[in-house]
Order: sequence, then C-alpha cells, then structure tokens
Amino acid sequence: MATALHTTVEAQACCAPLVAAPISAPDADALARTLKALADPTRLRLLSLVAAHDGGEACVCDLTDPVGLSQPTVSHHLKVLVDAGLLTRDKRGVWAYYAVVPGALDSVAAVLDTQLRR
Amino acid sequence: MATALHTTVEAQACCAPLVAAPISAPDADALARTLKALADPTRLRLLSLVAAHDGGEACVCDLTDPVGLSQPTVSHHLKVLVDAGLLTRDKRGVWAYYAVVPGALDSVAAVLDTQLRR
Repeated sequence: MATALHTTVEAQACCAPLVAAPISAPDADALARTLKALADPTRLRLLSLVAAHDGGEACVCDLTDPVGLSQPTVSHHLKVLVDAGLLTRDKRGVWAYYAVVPGALDSVAAVLDTQLRR
Repeated sequence: MATALHTTVEAQACCAPLVAAPISAPDADALARTLKALADPTRLRLLSLVAAHDGGEACVCDLTDPVGLSQPTVSHHLKVLVDAGLLTRDKRGVWAYYAVVPGALDSVAAVLDTQLRR
C-alpha cells in the first residue's frame, strides 16, 4: 500500500504537460510506472468494465465472464491496478468491490495532452 | 513500417472514452500496444525532449547528453517510438531527425480522458 500511495501522489504531482518542457527524470519514472499498469489489454478492459458498471463499482464476480478469464487471473490484474493507484478496493462480506479512483486517469491524460497541434 | 502504420490507424480509430462504455478487445489491444511504447522512463524523456526541442525535431546527437545514454541505446528507444506511431523519422545527410507525430499523444489522452469526475 505504501508503494501504491507513493505512485499516486507522484502521478498527481507530475502534471506538467509532456511536451511543454522536458519532463524530469523522477516525473518520467512515476508516469512510466502508471503507464505500465495501464499497458495491458486485459487491464484496460477491466478498468473500463469497472468504470462502466452500475454504480461505478464491480466485484471480481462481475468481471470474469466479460473478459473470459479465471477469477485468480482477474484478481491479479485488479491488484496491479489498485497498486498503481487507478482502482480502489473495498471488501464487503464475501466480495471485494473495485471502483476507479476519481481523477486518476485524468492526471495521466493531462500529462500526455499537450500543445502537439502547434 | 506496416506494423507502425497499423498501430497508428487503430489508435486513432480507438477514440471512444475508456469508461463511457466497455472498451472492445481489439481497441484494448491497440491502446495497450501504444501505452507499452510509452511506459518507459527513458522513452517518455526522449519524446518530451524531441517535442520541446527547437523546431519540434531533434537528432540522436541532441538527445544522448540529456538522457546520459549511448547513441545505440537512444536509437533503440527512438525506434520503438517510431514503430508505435508516436515519432516520425526523417533521414537528412548524416543524421536522422525525429519529430512527434501531430495528434498521436492527443489520441491516447482522449481515450484515457473520461467522465471519471462523475
């Protein structure tokens, strides 16, 4: 959890657009860690399924069928997204419920979004 | 080059926001490929340095010192970015000059940018 928190804080701090000025080495490290968590087709689909699910949250039981993978595999991918600060995990009864961290993807998009149209 | 073109076309076609509706499996594959190219601290710094360089283009000779890496290593990372459709490469005389593909990062940011604030 310390690592996840560290990553989230750094990702939020790292808000200078990527091309306005050269990105610093620590900011590049933080952004690369977040992008690595995102750079997997299954994790992109899971993140998208969680966000689009009723109430903005979903349990593993909601996600295995749509992606066609086993519960342990889905749980592994969800843990990577939680550790990267992109999903929250809330254990209630038998299941854990996952939700997208508000603003987390926006922070990544803001760094990538640029004056590239110049 | 065929692969790079394919990726770029798919990335541009893949413009539905990630959380408005679940992303399709082919769109997730295309986006993950682009994000994998971006998900490296050196490549983020190189992309940023190229974009911020005078005239919006730079040769390997401009980039080795700022990132503190050898020319072959820098050339390798630049090739990954070219293959992902994020940089163009223009050979003029002794050097090749790299520039950011207009709109390429915007497409990635647009897919990540979402209604997450709801």
